[in-house]
Amino acid sequence: MPSRNIVNIILLGPGKVGKTFLNILMKNIEHIENTYRISLKVTGVFSSEREITDSNGLALSSLKKIIQGKKILRRATKPSNVHMLMNSGRPFILIDTTSSDNTAELILSALKKGGFAVLSNKRPLCLNFDIYNNFLKSGAQRLFFETTVGAGLPVIETLKSLIETGDEIIELNGCLSGTLGFIFSQIESGMTFSGSILSAKKMGYTESDPREDLKGSDVARKLLILSRLTGMHKEITDINLQALYPEKMNALTVDNFIKEISIYDRIYKGKMTEAKKSGKTIRFIARIKGNKLSANLTMVKKSGDLGSLQGPDNLIVIRTKRYFHHPLIIKGPGAGLEVTAAGVLSDILKIIKIIKGGIS
Amino acid sequence: MPSRNIVNIILLGPGKVGKTFLNILMKNIEHIENTYRISLKVTGVFSSEREITDSNGLALSSLKKIIQGKKILRRATKPSNVHMLMNSGRPFILIDTTSSDNTAELILSALKKGGFAVLSNKRPLCLNFDIYNNFLKSGAQRLFFETTVGAGLPVIETLKSLIETGDEIIELNGCLSGTLGFIFSQIESGMTFSGSILSAKKMGYTESDPREDLKGSDVARKLLILSRLTGMHKEITDINLQALYPEKMNALTVDNFIKEISIYDRIYKGKMTEAKKSGKTIRFIARIKGNKLSANLTMVKKSGDLGSLQGPDNLIVIRTKRYFHHPLIIKGPGAGLEVTAAGVLSDILKIIKIIKGGIS
Repeated sequence: MPSRNIVNIILLGPGKVGKTFLNILMKNIEHIENTYRISLKVTGVFSSEREITDSNGLALSSLKKIIQGKKILRRATKPSNVHMLMNSGRPFILIDTTSSDNTAELILSALKKGGFAVLSNKRPLCLNFDIYNNFLKSGAQRLFFETTVGAGLPVIETLKSLIETGDEIIELNGCLSGTLGFIFSQIESGMTFSGSILSAKKMGYTESDPREDLKGSDVARKLLILSRLTGMHKEITDINLQALYPEKMNALTVDNFIKEISIYDRIYKGKMTEAKKSGKTIRFIARIKGNKLSANLTMVKKSGDLGSLQGPDNLIVIRTKRYFHHPLIIKGPGAGLEVTAAGVLSDILKIIKIIKGGIS
Repeated sequence: MPSRNIVNIILLGPGKVGKTFLNILMKNIEHIENTYRISLKVTGVFSSEREITDSNGLALSSLKKIIQGKKILRRATKPSNVHMLMNSGRPFILIDTTSSDNTAELILSALKKGGFAVLSNKRPLCLNFDIYNNFLKSGAQRLFFETTVGAGLPVIETLKSLIETGDEIIELNGCLSGTLGFIFSQIESGMTFSGSILSAKKMGYTESDPREDLKGSDVARKLLILSRLTGMHKEITDINLQALYPEKMNALTVDNFIKEISIYDRIYKGKMTEAKKSGKTIRFIARIKGNKLSANLTMVKKSGDLGSLQGPDNLIVIRTKRYFHHPLIIKGPGAGLEVTAAGVLSDILKIIKIIKGGIS
């Protein structure tokens, strides 16, 4: 079956994750091609306004330049060349490492054409449920997004496989933000709320605007993805989400926000003190329980799995009918360029195995 | 492609795991068949001396009888009917839920015929390296054994995917025996060694002869499987394995062994007391470090991941080049009929996805 021996890769988003992915792909491509007797061709790389394409596969030298951040992408054509590349007749994988809301249509188109899609971008999976449902209807088995929750940690596949084998989720609790995990373990050890935000910012754990982390919407997106995986038909607005600062502070500049946030130091110190009185601590917990979704600051037992978590690690506790008295727990770095990019490559390897149909 | 729409299943070992697997399969078969537009036929069930086969698929009523433990298997033919069933021309999955050393030849034969194999049986993977290597050469991508380490916990696939994407193992530490985990957390809370063995036996955590657990060979097998996955060419005899009782006690009857084991209570109490002096505890740890494999009683920090583990849960800490400062950790029940059987079904679903080639 010669048509199974070339697989085209189309990358949306040559940003930090996209470049790291290309780098890891280049380092491992020879081994992968030999192992699976397959040829992988990156036929296009697209940013929102620029692109580079070659239907025979971009030269290694071009890929290296992209990885090094050299500006070799040309102004994009309209309509986009992505469609042309998806019509090559070869198996293809569309990879979305952007953080854009606008890639859903392309992903749907890829699935409809019988292609595969790998997403590290959470946003297309968090639009209204109809769009998600269209993804599933057009090719549930050809859509991969392991890195959208917990980066390279095996969260998505594990949950999928529990559901597919007939297990039922009783409760799911997660610390799904490395930034918020770091901040609250700092507060636990005596630092102020504002001090811990600054320290997280210095460590590079926060977005350039720390409100992006503190408003919890990234955690909410992850929770929505997990809930949809379990079969729940929820929207992002169905989540009981409590930001860690009042909405009116959204109007401030970043600098002014950072200056003013210290007025909340006493509140979080008070919450922590109260928790400690009863052997507890506070963590920002994403939770599925029954039909309810929530993402907010929660008191948890200090000695438990969520309470003893320290620093920026993610942790997810999955309690199901089968894993009831002893839940299934996955812990580790839930962010980072290397682990995310490697997770994207891992999704691609799953696809290669499917495309090759067990023929080696 | 009509040939992709029927998949035959051949089960070796209708014991506890095998029956639970058939039960979970029956409960989920309709949903799986609808989701993947596939028909699953159990064409044969084989114990070491008895069998039942139907090349068109056993009737539901027969499968129910097997699950209920009714004796409907006939005396086995020689040469075995397994080979006949593997020659049907249809895609097939050979499932080994036995605990036999003698299934390796059948598994190899299945892979050579282009079939798939799913093993919860560790033993065929722990014979000499040549046999393991023959499995890999005959169909590495068609051999699945997620449940051989940590039952339904996602250990094997996670490790595979790290290696395949170019990561390197720095150190791997695991509590891989629920029985030994339970025993040492009992000792930690003040119980004697012999008392905790008896209590583990009462809870059903030990084999009927507790020496099977206490000699550590089951842990050693799991460690060998993990090491081979990472590319190491090791034999079971390469593992520095320390049993928890002296070899001469193998000559005793089970009852006498249980009577006499209390003479070691003082030794283990002493080890635990010594460990506690420096904020540590003792656990039976399987370890890969550099080129060395070991499985033995080890002092670990009480507040660390391995030291804080309580009861029969398994835990594995994977430290790699990418997961270095913050390792990847998986924790949960590492044994149990339901979770093991569901893990076998989960491997089958991976195979179905491969067989269907992303066509849904």
